[in-house]
Amino acid sequence: MQKFYEKTLKSSHIFKGIVFDVKKDDVELSTGEKTIREVVNHPGGVVILALKDENTILLVKQYRYPLKLVSLELPAGKLDRVENPDLAAKREFEEETGFVAKKWDKLGIAYSSPGFCDETLHFYLARDLEYKKHSPDDGEIIEYFEYNLGKVFDMINSGEINDAKTICAIMRAGLKGFIKLP
Amino acid sequence: MQKFYEKTLKSSHIFKGIVFDVKKDDVELSTGEKTIREVVNHPGGVVILALKDENTILLVKQYRYPLKLVSLELPAGKLDRVENPDLAAKREFEEETGFVAKKWDKLGIAYSSPGFCDETLHFYLARDLEYKKHSPDDGEIIEYFEYNLGKVFDMINSGEINDAKTICAIMRAGLKGFIKLP
Repeated sequence: MQKFYEKTLKSSHIFKGIVFDVKKDDVELSTGEKTIREVVNHPGGVVILALKDENTILLVKQYRYPLKLVSLELPAGKLDRVENPDLAAKREFEEETGFVAKKWDKLGIAYSSPGFCDETLHFYLARDLEYKKHSPDDGEIIEYFEYNLGKVFDMINSGEINDAKTICAIMRAGLKGFIKLP
Repeated sequence: MQKFYEKTLKSSHIFKGIVFDVKKDDVELSTGEKTIREVVNHPGGVVILALKDENTILLVKQYRYPLKLVSLELPAGKLDRVENPDLAAKREFEEETGFVAKKWDKLGIAYSSPGFCDETLHFYLARDLEYKKHSPDDGEIIEYFEYNLGKVFDMINSGEINDAKTICAIMRAGLKGFIKLP
């Protein structure tokens, strides 16, 4: 067996939810040692860094029930099971902000919590924006705001923005040269 | 009721695990609409950006069972329930790399998946390193590597590094002026 590999000996389904499923597996490490892995299976999500102009970013504000706080984040949403992320990005962006974008670029992916969860986030850059109609999903109360890029960096630095996917997407856009990092 | 608030009507415990618990809550939105929130309760984690010198970062390689892949990340670990993150950072850093650090700075926090999970990550900068002894936890097969900072940016950009907490910690360290962003 390869050194960095864990073999599934037994997999037990614990919970089948609307957003995620949970399983509990008995696994064998490459040393022969046995252990348990608890896993959250999540369909994955999309995150949209939308530039209204080269210095203006759209953020959305919403209540995040697991954390019991109001959070300022990039527009984002989860995939419907087996959905194409490109389509999900367009749908979620329009639902959450009311804008459509004519120009889309991929910014790569990230794993939000690889220790216990398989959630994969797909990052997008959206440009050439046009306002259409704000129509959030049922069960979503969400407002969008426009922020200067410099202000967004300040809010990340001060801890007003603590959402990991938002910070990652901005870093990826900076490394790809779409925005200027400080 | 405030606009951005969701009131818990009923909370049901679904799963009590070793790493996380799951609950399923009936909630009421500020519009009066009722919905269900599935929540993963996680004790939180620590992430350590260790600089061996101003251009050299320590990364660890390990198998991530939920994703079925080998991942290159900053040293990190979860909190024991109600553990002080400062102590957890020191413990996890030493366990995963064999190094101790004399100089510690806080880099802020991030929420890994605020839509369904309360995991909070605490980021640290570790400097003045001294090698002691590599002794990973039971059930952890982990190796550490030293990388040039420029190479780390390249690996984030190319998708060789896709771990959200690693990307966030590096961004936070850059915004605070501890490392130079490209």
